[in-house]
Amino acid sequence: MVKLNLSLELNYDIAAPGCDFIFNIQAAQTQCQTIVEENLQLNQPLTPDLYRDPWSGNRYLRLNALPGPFKLQYAATIELAHFIMAPPQLLEVPISRLPGPVLQYLYPSRYCQSDRLHKLAVREFGHLWQGYSRVQAIQDWVRNHVTFTSNTSNASTSAIDTLIDQVGVCRDFAHLMISLCRAVNIPARFATGIDYGANQLLGPTDFHAYVEVYLGNRWYIFDPSGVAIPMGFVRFATGRDAADAAFAMLFGSVQSAQPIIAIQAVVDDEHVLPYHSADALSTDN
Amino acid sequence: MVKLNLSLELNYDIAAPGCDFIFNIQAAQTQCQTIVEENLQLNQPLTPDLYRDPWSGNRYLRLNALPGPFKLQYAATIELAHFIMAPPQLLEVPISRLPGPVLQYLYPSRYCQSDRLHKLAVREFGHLWQGYSRVQAIQDWVRNHVTFTSNTSNASTSAIDTLIDQVGVCRDFAHLMISLCRAVNIPARFATGIDYGANQLLGPTDFHAYVEVYLGNRWYIFDPSGVAIPMGFVRFATGRDAADAAFAMLFGSVQSAQPIIAIQAVVDDEHVLPYHSADALSTDN
Amino acid sequence: MVKLNLSLELNYDIAAPGCDFIFNIQAAQTQCQTIVEENLQLNQPLTPDLYRDPWSGNRYLRLNALPGPFKLQYAATIELAHFIMAPPQLLEVPISRLPGPVLQYLYPSRYCQSDRLHKLAVREFGHLWQGYSRVQAIQDWVRNHVTFTSNTSNASTSAIDTLIDQVGVCRDFAHLMISLCRAVNIPARFATGIDYGANQLLGPTDFHAYVEVYLGNRWYIFDPSGVAIPMGFVRFATGRDAADAAFAMLFGSVQSAQPIIAIQAVVDDEHVLPYHSADALSTDN
Amino acid sequence: MVKLNLSLELNYDIAAPGCDFIFNIQAAQTQCQTIVEENLQLNQPLTPDLYRDPWSGNRYLRLNALPGPFKLQYAATIELAHFIMAPPQLLEVPISRLPGPVLQYLYPSRYCQSDRLHKLAVREFGHLWQGYSRVQAIQDWVRNHVTFTSNTSNASTSAIDTLIDQVGVCRDFAHLMISLCRAVNIPARFATGIDYGANQLLGPTDFHAYVEVYLGNRWYIFDPSGVAIPMGFVRFATGRDAADAAFAMLFGSVQSAQPIIAIQAVVDDEHVLPYHSADALSTDN
Repeated sequence: MVKLNLSLELNYDIAAPGCDFIFNIQAAQTQCQTIVEENLQLNQPLTPDLYRDPWSGNRYLRLNALPGPFKLQYAATIELAHFIMAPPQLLEVPISRLPGPVLQYLYPSRYCQSDRLHKLAVREFGHLWQGYSRVQAIQDWVRNHVTFTSNTSNASTSAIDTLIDQVGVCRDFAHLMISLCRAVNIPARFATGIDYGANQLLGPTDFHAYVEVYLGNRWYIFDPSGVAIPMGFVRFATGRDAADAAFAMLFGSVQSAQPIIAIQAVVDDEHVLPYHSADALSTDN
Repeated sequence: MVKLNLSLELNYDIAAPGCDFIFNIQAAQTQCQTIVEENLQLNQPLTPDLYRDPWSGNRYLRLNALPGPFKLQYAATIELAHFIMAPPQLLEVPISRLPGPVLQYLYPSRYCQSDRLHKLAVREFGHLWQGYSRVQAIQDWVRNHVTFTSNTSNASTSAIDTLIDQVGVCRDFAHLMISLCRAVNIPARFATGIDYGANQLLGPTDFHAYVEVYLGNRWYIFDPSGVAIPMGFVRFATGRDAADAAFAMLFGSVQSAQPIIAIQAVVDDEHVLPYHSADALSTDN
Repeated sequence: MVKLNLSLELNYDIAAPGCDFIFNIQAAQTQCQTIVEENLQLNQPLTPDLYRDPWSGNRYLRLNALPGPFKLQYAATIELAHFIMAPPQLLEVPISRLPGPVLQYLYPSRYCQSDRLHKLAVREFGHLWQGYSRVQAIQDWVRNHVTFTSNTSNASTSAIDTLIDQVGVCRDFAHLMISLCRAVNIPARFATGIDYGANQLLGPTDFHAYVEVYLGNRWYIFDPSGVAIPMGFVRFATGRDAADAAFAMLFGSVQSAQPIIAIQAVVDDEHVLPYHSADALSTDN
Repeated sequence: MVKLNLSLELNYDIAAPGCDFIFNIQAAQTQCQTIVEENLQLNQPLTPDLYRDPWSGNRYLRLNALPGPFKLQYAATIELAHFIMAPPQLLEVPISRLPGPVLQYLYPSRYCQSDRLHKLAVREFGHLWQGYSRVQAIQDWVRNHVTFTSNTSNASTSAIDTLIDQVGVCRDFAHLMISLCRAVNIPARFATGIDYGANQLLGPTDFHAYVEVYLGNRWYIFDPSGVAIPMGFVRFATGRDAADAAFAMLFGSVQSAQPIIAIQAVVDDEHVLPYHSADALSTDN
């Protein structure tokens, strides 16, 4: 089991009255991810609207900030008791037997134009044995075809752009992997959160984007950019793609500062440091 | 009140075993749309999986068809008791007060890249008085900028393509209108169904695509292509865009014939012919 | 040596006065392609403007047709004495030593966004031995990644679309191959014409699009779609891509009929039937 | 008459042997632009290949730089004796009477997809009186629809992107204006150079991109971004779009520093300061 203490601080400068925010910056409460404790603080006298989507478990925090500096601080202690499976046991689920709420993750979305990648995906992955190993082959293909490079993509970069340009950051790797999975009829979704232990080369801890794929009867974690340790992911939100899971949507005239994020692992009798595992990990069904 | 008898017949030729279908071809049961009776027939001995999404009310019909000819016939009698409102009373809802489940319809989607149209939409519509009339202005703008022309778009045509090329069919008009609404923070979604009384110039009755916009505290119907009578729409499905509401998704080697669709209005003491109304119409909240 | 008799007939119905045409439908006179005789006939009393671009040798035929039916007939006898080279002798030319007029064929163009394909091309072809064999590897790659399928592309389909969708016709194969060549700094251009002996499966003879690549000190013919016999190509025009070499550009309200094209090979003491040759063929320097 | 002294310095750090450059950084010698004197200096013992394209007058400077720091310095004194015309006298030229070499500027190119903008351009500009005033209307439209904003576009941004996103820099304004001109059959081309007197708000002098449009029987200067004074443009290169007229193309592993550019106007008995003129200015036919 893994236990993580995380904190994040977001700073904005609001130019005019009436600036709406929709945040996805609270840890999700899932089957395997428990919020031991958490604390939210705002520097303005606001009562945010909290909404937890029953399907995704995403926690939307909405507020209308006042002009001037606006600071949001969130801290949480999270316990992760992953559901673990041996990869060879994980099979793909025929379309006719997928649970209804999973169907939407077969369809193309803003950044994941899986409809256009059908032929490419069938040529590359159509002949492979179905199951976890096929998803892993897709992940390897994405890693081999895309180079992690900061500042090469932007908010409108889609999976098709990444496939052509072959550069991107974690979000772009995720979009391309999701698109290729859907293109061979494997449900896949976008996940965001904070990760413990990202490759030190990437600089300070940042929000992370990764992939969850539906196999057997659960969602399993994949990290196509390969820069982090899946066992150390604290999930904030899932969705079709980044359009659904932005950590912050801003509606108004705002200056944003760089987020300040920290995360530490607690190691004691019950809890270990996150490590790279060959097992399949899931936090949700 | 409107009462409609509709029937549709879909014919396929299945080349190989194991062809999955996901259909959205059953009338939705909504607050204002009542299924008086309905009947589904298949020419193959299959037990389809039926799933009704609790959010959207979409009814997914899944099956795995056998090789050979496959015919699906659906007939229904539908009663529509629209919720009616005078347009001047319909206001836009501030982001901070939108119901949680409505938030997703603010976000960009596969065919509706509202994120990229923000500046254009603000320039064209940002100064307008908020409410129903602004949505109508968006609808008028789309009608003025796009020419209805068959066979000018395809399954990958997006709102941006339609904005550039200025031609399309009902689905393309819908995607562009949805994108422009979202770009000024008005929730909008894609709806499909069968319409009574489409412009006779367009040939035989076909599936129709239109728009629902969230105003006041309900979803109101708009028909940006302007070829049909909103009061005569039988809704099958709603979603972010066409990716969510295809009448049929096919996974396998299939030949499709043109759908055969018929619809008649029942006129009696209680029921009138659908007509073009200046009121705002809603079937759902 | 090859000798070909070709004829083509184009039929239009002009709705309104003042319809301009720019045709590229006359055989080019190049170093190796000789026009033995040719004949042009119009059914309207027009004196077309004829312009031969000195660089490309393209022959532009401009006219302003009158309302009513408009027919253009062109027939020619062409002799082809290809410059022939053994592939292993053909080297790529360093950028610093390319002739000035060739430089433009290194640059991206409307349908050939070679700028975006640099990383992909370097990954796939960057490590290969430079020369004819590398160009052949690019051609093979295109053939392996794209399936020839009629009616899958349109006038705005670019190399990037073809790379994603993996389907297309001869023009699309050409655009993708050109883009990949330029992306590794090999000058490549688009060529159109009529081909003797296209794969009978493709139906009646049509205009053909293919590629010329600059190697050694000449332009060599490649046929990435693989449906025709390069030795039987009569060249009409070359350019950066299809934008420069359309067989007809129409400016006005016109109905077009399908072109009627015929071509026969003359076989006698001096002339052979076009055949698939392992040699590199060039018609121009 | 205008006389300008300009200097530019480009600094690179070459990582590995064999780095090719193609520069377009020498003033063009045109009918109205005279090079009084010029001087080129390199810090490496190289003999560059100089090629002047006879059509465009573009001067390509090619070289293969050695590893280590590489500095290029260019200084020139330029005299501009513009051909001046009263706008009302400038008519559009019918397609059938355009000079042959001008035809290519009717066609779409890498960044100017005029083929897709035909309907939009006809709707906005099709009804306008033909001639200089229509081109000015196109220029005004571009200025009204696009906001000059640094760092909003990149090397792959095309006219369609700019039309959608409505932001860009001088190059993007030029691409959109060119596309709209071509879409209504007015030949238009991309021009680059150095400008005297750019809006001081934009920071230090930089390369400038603008437009030349074919009217009457000459190319006339337009500055769609509106940040500079057309009378003070020293032209370096023209082409279909930025793909043809990059000030530097680099083939290899290079670090580039910001260009250092200076320009002063000489004012004496014969020469005046560049000023905003209501006349149409041309430097070339």
